[in-house]
Amino acid sequence: MIDIIKADGRREPFDEHKLRRSLRRAHIPQKHHDAVVRQIMSSLYPGIPTREIYQHVQNFFMSAYPEGAPRYNLKQAIMELGPSGYPFERYIGALLERQGYVVQVGTVVRGTCVSHEVDVLAKKGHEHYMIECKFHNEPGLRSDVKVSLYVQARYLDILNAWKKQEPPEEQNDTHQAWLVTNTKCTADALEYAQCVGMKVLGWNYPEHGSLQDMIEESHLHPITSLTTLSQSHKQALLNKNIVMVRDLEQQQSTLNELGLTMLEAQAVRREMATLMQEQGEG
Amino acid sequence: MIDIIKADGRREPFDEHKLRRSLRRAHIPQKHHDAVVRQIMSSLYPGIPTREIYQHVQNFFMSAYPEGAPRYNLKQAIMELGPSGYPFERYIGALLERQGYVVQVGTVVRGTCVSHEVDVLAKKGHEHYMIECKFHNEPGLRSDVKVSLYVQARYLDILNAWKKQEPPEEQNDTHQAWLVTNTKCTADALEYAQCVGMKVLGWNYPEHGSLQDMIEESHLHPITSLTTLSQSHKQALLNKNIVMVRDLEQQQSTLNELGLTMLEAQAVRREMATLMQEQGEG
Repeated sequence: MIDIIKADGRREPFDEHKLRRSLRRAHIPQKHHDAVVRQIMSSLYPGIPTREIYQHVQNFFMSAYPEGAPRYNLKQAIMELGPSGYPFERYIGALLERQGYVVQVGTVVRGTCVSHEVDVLAKKGHEHYMIECKFHNEPGLRSDVKVSLYVQARYLDILNAWKKQEPPEEQNDTHQAWLVTNTKCTADALEYAQCVGMKVLGWNYPEHGSLQDMIEESHLHPITSLTTLSQSHKQALLNKNIVMVRDLEQQQSTLNELGLTMLEAQAVRREMATLMQEQGEG
Repeated sequence: MIDIIKADGRREPFDEHKLRRSLRRAHIPQKHHDAVVRQIMSSLYPGIPTREIYQHVQNFFMSAYPEGAPRYNLKQAIMELGPSGYPFERYIGALLERQGYVVQVGTVVRGTCVSHEVDVLAKKGHEHYMIECKFHNEPGLRSDVKVSLYVQARYLDILNAWKKQEPPEEQNDTHQAWLVTNTKCTADALEYAQCVGMKVLGWNYPEHGSLQDMIEESHLHPITSLTTLSQSHKQALLNKNIVMVRDLEQQQSTLNELGLTMLEAQAVRREMATLMQEQGEG
């Protein structure tokens, strides 16, 4: 069994099943899976970093199935929403908005003790969510229990104030704190969150309905997924508050403002169209 | 009015009154104050960093009143307890122990949801304190409201568990969370702490009974205050869990193990003796 080295430095045996699952999750058509697995198996060596395995998968897609690349590099694309955490907050807000939530991003909310800057407030019917977005620029960084703890204390401070001034028709509404992260949480952070009733949405967590699943299922890829745009063009779009491929598709004029050649712009349009297809070919 | 630049980058007008207060706080005899102030006033220029002012004060002491140096450099001495936060925790523990508390440093305490590592637990009579020590290596770094928030959430999780298993004779005991830092806290962090009843002990905070006052009044200087010991000797002592000058005075054998020359060891002993004098000459 060959050991691979994960982003956080830990070793674990290479797991073909995990690789296949990551392909399914990225909606890569079934017919390509065996070829990807064969290519990876032939390039493994003891201590290979997951980063390198990931690069091999990307190389395969570039030659054999170009549409796969932006789907498969979702995790990296989310990292590229940095360096600040703000585009990630906006992205999470937009994701929830498309799911029917009424959303506010980066608002200051008065608690009983102090005012707090809340990353995302989301409301659907009688459900209110106070969402903390924890963005990390590096894979392998985990949110620890201090994060769950401060999110909970802040939530309680705000909830206290809310309860006092709630209009009568909202008195039976439910409130919940969420912690959303693009990486992972420590076991303690998850245990504490579960114990106090906080929802955690992380990379591949929970097993069903993780952040990754939410993005894949709704085809709401961030613009950073596009392999046809350069790093600087992506940053220019983020600065214009365009975070999703769907936003860019609907505002094609913005694409023209980037100063792309006609061929380059065509390539971007083609990649967007493929990514937006409801289910791919698989 | 000449502006000076503080460690956190903010400008403020030079304040002679503050300088005099810092001399009083360090128990520098009154008769030296005017000379120090004259020397500083003559070396001021617009935009002078406080670090440089501090160095001028130290230079004055080195020539005119050597005993003053280790007293006046207390803030820097506490910084030198780093880079890890552990000697600071031990130092705070020892400080409270000398004030009659029963102290445990770095213990794991079971809360209702998860187990927490608590920096210092202190108990005196019917009072129990759960203390978080926040050590910063750089002046100007402030603990923000997230710190007060997580300290409070952790405290509540532990208190919940405590209440359930408390022996009957302790049922009327009082519990309190403390946040102790060698730098400062943001206004929000202080406001939240005050609102929930958390005690904050910081550099020059609260105005009376700050960490600095506690140290000065009890003459429990950290070994890093000693100007006669090199950086590496200080680290060697910290590694042996010797954090206070008083500890070193009582374990002179440790001093011999450092490999100092007889003259060097004498200088250290002399400096320690001066520092231990109850009130100095002032």
